[in-house]
Amino acid sequence: MKRDRAAVIGLGLIGGSVALALKAQGWHVTGRDADPDREQQALADGVVDAVGDDASAEITFVATPVRAVAAEARRALELGRGLVTDVGSVKASVVDAVGDARFLGGHPMAGSEQEGLDGADAQMFEGAVWVLTPTPATPDVAFARLAGVVSSFGAEVVALPPERHDALVAVVSHVPHLTAATMMRLADERSEEHAALLRLAAGGFRDMTRIASGHPAIWPDICAENRTAIVEALDGLIGGLAEMRDVVAKGDRGALLAALQRARAARANLPGRVARPADLVEVRIPVPDRPGVLAEITTLAAELGVNTADIEIAHSAEGDRGVVIMLVEARKGELFRGGLMARGFRPSVQRLT
Amino acid sequence: MKRDRAAVIGLGLIGGSVALALKAQGWHVTGRDADPDREQQALADGVVDAVGDDASAEITFVATPVRAVAAEARRALELGRGLVTDVGSVKASVVDAVGDARFLGGHPMAGSEQEGLDGADAQMFEGAVWVLTPTPATPDVAFARLAGVVSSFGAEVVALPPERHDALVAVVSHVPHLTAATMMRLADERSEEHAALLRLAAGGFRDMTRIASGHPAIWPDICAENRTAIVEALDGLIGGLAEMRDVVAKGDRGALLAALQRARAARANLPGRVARPADLVEVRIPVPDRPGVLAEITTLAAELGVNTADIEIAHSAEGDRGVVIMLVEARKGELFRGGLMARGFRPSVQRLT
Repeated sequence: MKRDRAAVIGLGLIGGSVALALKAQGWHVTGRDADPDREQQALADGVVDAVGDDASAEITFVATPVRAVAAEARRALELGRGLVTDVGSVKASVVDAVGDARFLGGHPMAGSEQEGLDGADAQMFEGAVWVLTPTPATPDVAFARLAGVVSSFGAEVVALPPERHDALVAVVSHVPHLTAATMMRLADERSEEHAALLRLAAGGFRDMTRIASGHPAIWPDICAENRTAIVEALDGLIGGLAEMRDVVAKGDRGALLAALQRARAARANLPGRVARPADLVEVRIPVPDRPGVLAEITTLAAELGVNTADIEIAHSAEGDRGVVIMLVEARKGELFRGGLMARGFRPSVQRLT
Repeated sequence: MKRDRAAVIGLGLIGGSVALALKAQGWHVTGRDADPDREQQALADGVVDAVGDDASAEITFVATPVRAVAAEARRALELGRGLVTDVGSVKASVVDAVGDARFLGGHPMAGSEQEGLDGADAQMFEGAVWVLTPTPATPDVAFARLAGVVSSFGAEVVALPPERHDALVAVVSHVPHLTAATMMRLADERSEEHAALLRLAAGGFRDMTRIASGHPAIWPDICAENRTAIVEALDGLIGGLAEMRDVVAKGDRGALLAALQRARAARANLPGRVARPADLVEVRIPVPDRPGVLAEITTLAAELGVNTADIEIAHSAEGDRGVVIMLVEARKGELFRGGLMARGFRPSVQRLT
């Protein structure tokens, strides 16, 4: 039996985890890394089946540092005819720099406090969100194939335009990281005058500054590639804190309570893990055979906050039309149907029994 | 055998935990709460031995919301002749308002995401820092007794002047809380335009906003009582974030990396749990019989970052002098000795075998 073939470029924490998750799904995985020792370790530990390049890889995952992604992706595109994706935390600049419809940006929202190949784990993506950033040029079959593979890792696919992804991760990832670091640094400065300070740091402070213990080396690239969105989100936070400062200075109890209550409610509503199969409905959407239609549909799902558990395309016998079949959370079925109809689709929604 | 008697006013999460910790150490505990149902529950669950007041309580812990502490403390001081302490997170205004040497402010740096009596736990304070805020008027025997009781709960005593405590918790507790709430609120505002936003919130964002899920009702009091220190610490954070913003906007990679590296090193140095007995030395400090000398010594220990595992006072036969005996972490023994000598004490340091 012939195994599906994939390649992974960059065998760190995420690349190693992707390789292990692929192997767990039966793929043949060829890996490459800038560090030959790490390549040999990956081979010895069974993280990859082979070391080097694989011109016949159906999918190549580029898991290098952000600054190297575009060059490695172009190299992989020249080497073979497969689909190429990446796992970096900034997307618009990379998608632009690669400039090829066979490149589909990706970003698994997962990680751990461990670093490097030793922390790699086939289960790392279970229940995590994996963003894909298709453009109108992305072939539907490419998107559907990659979405299926990522779903097989246990991840939930969220499709977003590259620029939108970058603006959103600035708010929920990049700025929180910079804030944790700033808070830690300020506490540290104070601790020079008073050694007791850091002993007073209870669980809340430890939780808030945990991400500041991550490796700093990746951040100059991220901040350079996503500068505009990060500066805008930082300005928003600075403005929000200045409002909070004024509320405290004025002793405005009502405004303070309202702000904290809203934050508490929002925290309680932070979406959890992927919905269980019992809560899913099947949405069937007949689609014309034109490029980008799948990207349009899945991006609409993300914009409406509709979680997608599975995506598949069935082509009709005539070949000029197909049906997109999506499993989405039941309570959002009608919302999604409304959005699709507004865009000119004619979907049907069916409850799974 | 006569049991030591204590009282606990306010039977919520912390008050209930104090009652359970006292009972585990063999104390007879009388509890009172504004809610009669909760009093009965505490009695039925064995959290307290009796409900009501106890004029013969040797120590009374006031564990009510911050705004009620001063009145309850004065009431307890009038009722009996014992020592009175509290567990609130702001100290200077309360110590001033009570204005009695038998009142010694306290603040255990512990808690949980649970609320109320149901979350109470005798082990809550194990390994936690418990701040005591003696003033020059605090009797040494009162301080030593309370420090001993708190140590018996497994907590580490840190002595700080009330104002210093308030400035430090603004940095490590109050401002982090307000920041988590602000960050959560901003993300929530963005999520109104884009429902996918909160699905992208990975572990780091969840960690950072966890404290925003706490009960908002306590914060208007805390912000009112500790307004000056909170506003100052918020201004510091706003300034730090503005610097960070400029570094990102200018693309200054070196400055960004340096800031993140410093934050990472500081995070790695966050003090952990109490040192093990093997790492302790015994410091003996002959002291004159004057009020406030124990407060001076323990506050000096906190200022020097010296962890204290135990404190005891031995009085000499002549009665006008005594010896303070402290167990402190071995690696800080010489530092502490130097500080004590600079203040005119003549300590001896001995390694425990």
